[in-house]
Amino acid sequence: MKLFNKVAIVGVGLVGGSIALAIKNKGLAKEVIGVSRHKKTLLLAKRMGAIDKGALDLNIIRDADLVILATPVSAITKLAAKISKIVKKECLITDVGSTKQAIVSELERIFPNYVGSHPLAGSEKRGILNADPRILKDSLCIFTPTGNTNKAAQEKIARFWSMLGARVVYLTSGVHDRILSFVSHLPHLVAFSLIDTVPSSYLKFASAGLKDTTRVAASDSEIWSDIFLSNKNNILESIDIFQANLSKIKSAIQKKDKEQLISIFKLAKRKRESLNCLMFKV
Amino acid sequence: MKLFNKVAIVGVGLVGGSIALAIKNKGLAKEVIGVSRHKKTLLLAKRMGAIDKGALDLNIIRDADLVILATPVSAITKLAAKISKIVKKECLITDVGSTKQAIVSELERIFPNYVGSHPLAGSEKRGILNADPRILKDSLCIFTPTGNTNKAAQEKIARFWSMLGARVVYLTSGVHDRILSFVSHLPHLVAFSLIDTVPSSYLKFASAGLKDTTRVAASDSEIWSDIFLSNKNNILESIDIFQANLSKIKSAIQKKDKEQLISIFKLAKRKRESLNCLMFKV
Repeated sequence: MKLFNKVAIVGVGLVGGSIALAIKNKGLAKEVIGVSRHKKTLLLAKRMGAIDKGALDLNIIRDADLVILATPVSAITKLAAKISKIVKKECLITDVGSTKQAIVSELERIFPNYVGSHPLAGSEKRGILNADPRILKDSLCIFTPTGNTNKAAQEKIARFWSMLGARVVYLTSGVHDRILSFVSHLPHLVAFSLIDTVPSSYLKFASAGLKDTTRVAASDSEIWSDIFLSNKNNILESIDIFQANLSKIKSAIQKKDKEQLISIFKLAKRKRESLNCLMFKV
Repeated sequence: MKLFNKVAIVGVGLVGGSIALAIKNKGLAKEVIGVSRHKKTLLLAKRMGAIDKGALDLNIIRDADLVILATPVSAITKLAAKISKIVKKECLITDVGSTKQAIVSELERIFPNYVGSHPLAGSEKRGILNADPRILKDSLCIFTPTGNTNKAAQEKIARFWSMLGARVVYLTSGVHDRILSFVSHLPHLVAFSLIDTVPSSYLKFASAGLKDTTRVAASDSEIWSDIFLSNKNNILESIDIFQANLSKIKSAIQKKDKEQLISIFKLAKRKRESLNCLMFKV
């Protein structure tokens, strides 16, 4: 079912490329346009069947019905002003940034038909070559409309995500950023610090525990610097709480307080096990 | 090939049970004996074909040629004294404890034919029902003989691990404990602290990043309290270094120093990626 005539995806990396492929697979648009800073990305995206046409220049998105901004978060607000001068007034706009508060307040000022999105679908990999439309299937897409959001735009973009297989959940951008700082940003930051701590010569003794615990430390440094800086206050708060919890364990070890250690670890175990059976219920 | 007449495994949990199954699969012993505190474990181990006979009482190991201590680390030294009064003098003894310094110095004082072992094979699961002989295949088995170790015992136990599919690597118990504190104990401790930090009501928004980063937080609280306390000094040092690295990232976020963040994350990414292609070369 053709939901749109022309969808433009700005930033055809892992997430943008996966969305493009999913749109093509589901036949949701007559045409999918890609914009990238790299010619090679556009060639690959075209060869993979993710886009019909691509360009380095934003002017190609002129008559799009839906524009999806899928660049690192710091580029989203920078591109928005330029894009607002190019697209038609009725064009729907969304972004897939991992932080929402700054982006939503800026973009809804610029675009009459904007709603913020964050599909919780990604990996430590990046780039069009790692794009996979299946990452959207049964994923959670956090949707952050505000009191000012155009209802028709909101409904159509929500429908779009649902048709790509995502479960759409509504949060305010502030709540989104706080939750994500704990469930996503802090784990990345901890993984970076952890691999940093292991002497290189010890790495050959690593087993599955270290590998899993640090998998996301292979994530892109530019993307994640952006995320941490655009969610600074929440991240700093989550680090504070994490540091306090770590210190509690450290001090129990110092005091050889086995009982306290066991009680902390039992709670942690129960919490972690609950993660295996949690299904998000909208 | 029958390497032993009778192998006794004290502690028939995930690791002990997996070793028992591997011995049976490879036909390395005429008889495999299990000792456990729980009758149910012995029944299950027998039904799974891991052991031929089992008992709650240590006296069953009287005429074993090889005894493998596979209990939590704090129980290993406690059991050793009792076992030394039961086994014959020529019996080979090893243990699979995750920390080695305290255990090796104690056990080599008690047994003439003891060598410490640590097969890096396990998971966050526990218990005989999760035993799987394949976890030993191509795993690393760290072996910690000392200047006092009986050479014949050392060679035969090393051969035993090799025949179970493990690659045997020699380290002193001190080096073992230091390396493991970084590549295994610290990641567990960080995972416990991390899941502790995430508010329960946020868990339903967790994606693969949090799940992988905290997988080992579902590990057994008793086993891990023991490990942390028996490797106290190394663990405390690795926590210190981790805390310093985390603080460095925190302060770069506070100062909005994107360049420093990128340079830290780039190094982390390269280090984590190297982990994917590292193969231990003996």
